[in-house]
Amino acid sequence: ILSKQIVVLPGDGIGPEVCREAVRVLRAVADRFGHEFHFDYHLMGACAIDATGSPLPELTLDACHQADAVLLGAIGDPKYDHDPAAPVRPEQGLLRLRKELGLYANIRPVTAYDQLLEHSPLKADRIQDTDMLIFRELTGGVYFGEKGRSADGNSAYDNCTYSRAEIERITHRAFRAAETRRHHLTLVDKANVLETSRLWRETVQQLAPQYPSVALDYLFVDNAAMQIILNPRQFDVILTENMFGDIISDEASVIAGSLGMLPSASVGDAVALFEPIHGSYPQAKGKGIANPIATILSAAMLLDHFGLPEEADTVRAAVQHALNQQVVTPELNPATRYTTEQVGSFIAYAV
Amino acid sequence: ILSKQIVVLPGDGIGPEVCREAVRVLRAVADRFGHEFHFDYHLMGACAIDATGSPLPELTLDACHQADAVLLGAIGDPKYDHDPAAPVRPEQGLLRLRKELGLYANIRPVTAYDQLLEHSPLKADRIQDTDMLIFRELTGGVYFGEKGRSADGNSAYDNCTYSRAEIERITHRAFRAAETRRHHLTLVDKANVLETSRLWRETVQQLAPQYPSVALDYLFVDNAAMQIILNPRQFDVILTENMFGDIISDEASVIAGSLGMLPSASVGDAVALFEPIHGSYPQAKGKGIANPIATILSAAMLLDHFGLPEEADTVRAAVQHALNQQVVTPELNPATRYTTEQVGSFIAYAV
Ligand SMILES: CC(C)[C@H](C(=O)O)[C@@H](O)C(=O)O
Ligand SMILES: CC(C)[C@H](C(=O)O)[C@@H](O)C(=O)O
Repeated sequence: ILSKQIVVLPGDGIGPEVCREAVRVLRAVADRFGHEFHFDYHLMGACAIDATGSPLPELTLDACHQADAVLLGAIGDPKYDHDPAAPVRPEQGLLRLRKELGLYANIRPVTAYDQLLEHSPLKADRIQDTDMLIFRELTGGVYFGEKGRSADGNSAYDNCTYSRAEIERITHRAFRAAETRRHHLTLVDKANVLETSRLWRETVQQLAPQYPSVALDYLFVDNAAMQIILNPRQFDVILTENMFGDIISDEASVIAGSLGMLPSASVGDAVALFEPIHGSYPQAKGKGIANPIATILSAAMLLDHFGLPEEADTVRAAVQHALNQQVVTPELNPATRYTTEQVGSFIAYAV
Repeated sequence: ILSKQIVVLPGDGIGPEVCREAVRVLRAVADRFGHEFHFDYHLMGACAIDATGSPLPELTLDACHQADAVLLGAIGDPKYDHDPAAPVRPEQGLLRLRKELGLYANIRPVTAYDQLLEHSPLKADRIQDTDMLIFRELTGGVYFGEKGRSADGNSAYDNCTYSRAEIERITHRAFRAAETRRHHLTLVDKANVLETSRLWRETVQQLAPQYPSVALDYLFVDNAAMQIILNPRQFDVILTENMFGDIISDEASVIAGSLGMLPSASVGDAVALFEPIHGSYPQAKGKGIANPIATILSAAMLLDHFGLPEEADTVRAAVQHALNQQVVTPELNPATRYTTEQVGSFIAYAV
């Protein structure tokens, strides 16, 4: 019997609704497999600003540090969006959480589901059988570099830095993942222009001999942005820095047919965090139309992380069953009108 | 009678072949409309390194400064690609040329051609009638910021800076373009993370009242990378900084059905430069399979720039005629086997 403490950060918008269904599924897993999962709810994002003035209250951060895993819904509220220069914003909480928890690797699987091929803007024959895993560096680069304005306010700067050590730790993870998959790793960079990219290339090249079974290649980010659409099946594991990863992983999400299908894991040396890649989708809040599958699949990644692959596969099979039975939210099938809760309950029941 | 001096930089790989056809078309325009175009050929890129040691010889730079326009083929050779840290690389010539000529705005139209819808990886009904114009800032940002290594070589940095003046000059151009089109301008940035993006947003917002007929909106770059694929018709004019523009304009090229269809113009306060967005495609060199249309459409943009809209429209009509008659290179129709030269001659003849 496994006993685990999971901190849940429902966040804003549809975050609480999708988290509720993922927790429902995790409870079903605990019941069926005889584990004990304890769920501990905390504030982060706009709701935390409203309640405490801070997007990441210390109480929340402490709880995350002590947890075995963190499940996050989504953060963000339009009232903070209109002024990106506002002194306190929900995103700051997320960025600080990543940094404080040392979540240096964001892992996003991108899969073309057979049942959803018609929903993608891409032609079915181009994307069928796509199965890629994107490793995005998450605690370095331009996101966390020095930034500011000149004294007169008329110019601004953002500094991007990377150290060999920062590159090495995520690179080892990406190579190891490739070893368990199709043995192909692609580094996406802009080494023809950026010094940080040249350091990435150098460092990754130096580690490659430790993984002789993995074929390593390189793609400039502009070309990668094309190739991901032209021929996504060519990719197995993609490794890239923070900002490029933000852009190309969101771009690649179009392959899945719905943003509501894409999970992610953020891992480091201690506690790991799991969240759907979609945002807080404020327009859908409270309407019961949010797709909970991205969060449920994030919970499956959490189970993998706990060393419970059978449990994780059971959740993924239950999701496949829901897709097969067309028990899906309206963006995937406007005719059937299943709610967020109905989809979540169906999947939990199938576990 | 108009007399103009055009510097041609054929460059590397397929560059000379596609330039030859664009020059053929420009000569046909000169004949038909009674202008005088003088073509002056110079070295840039890998061929210039081979011949002179420098990717941008002073002779070439001087000629460009004195020209009325520059037509560029493509640069880059695999022998310089494998080592992005090599002391001299073809790209350095291109970056220096942009900076020296003050080419601060790179303008890329992205069009879905009805004849080529089936060639795009995107579903035809998603892209049909797409017509967007991307303004990419080209002489600032992380491309030209300070870059380097720490003393021990174990960390690298790239600095991104923008001044209000740099943002304003391209913003005015983008607003003016929107005024002549569908009156919609989208600024793509990452203002929730970057200080430079916040300066972009502030500056663009401040200029907006000067263009009351244009609707201005904002998109974070990760979301833009999705929206360009999900619903490209929503865009009219897109404005963005150098690195984001590099990525999203290459991404958007998938809409056209072939990289070989996409032209660009780079403009500033003095001489302007016109080039296809594709690279030097070394594998195709000398085979007669390179599509010359991107370069021919770049020549049409050059004619617009000379204040010759009728001539430019004539070239675009001739290209449409070639598409209608399926006189295209093999990537667009493997059956017909037209060569680069046959496609160029057909279009020149149709002018
Ligand atoms: C909200 C934002 C700061 C964040 C990021 O850019 O990392 C988001 O886009 C993501 O990818 O998780
Ligand atoms: C070759 C490279 C330096 C260049 C760039 O990144 O600007 C190219 O990708 C382009 O878009 O013209």
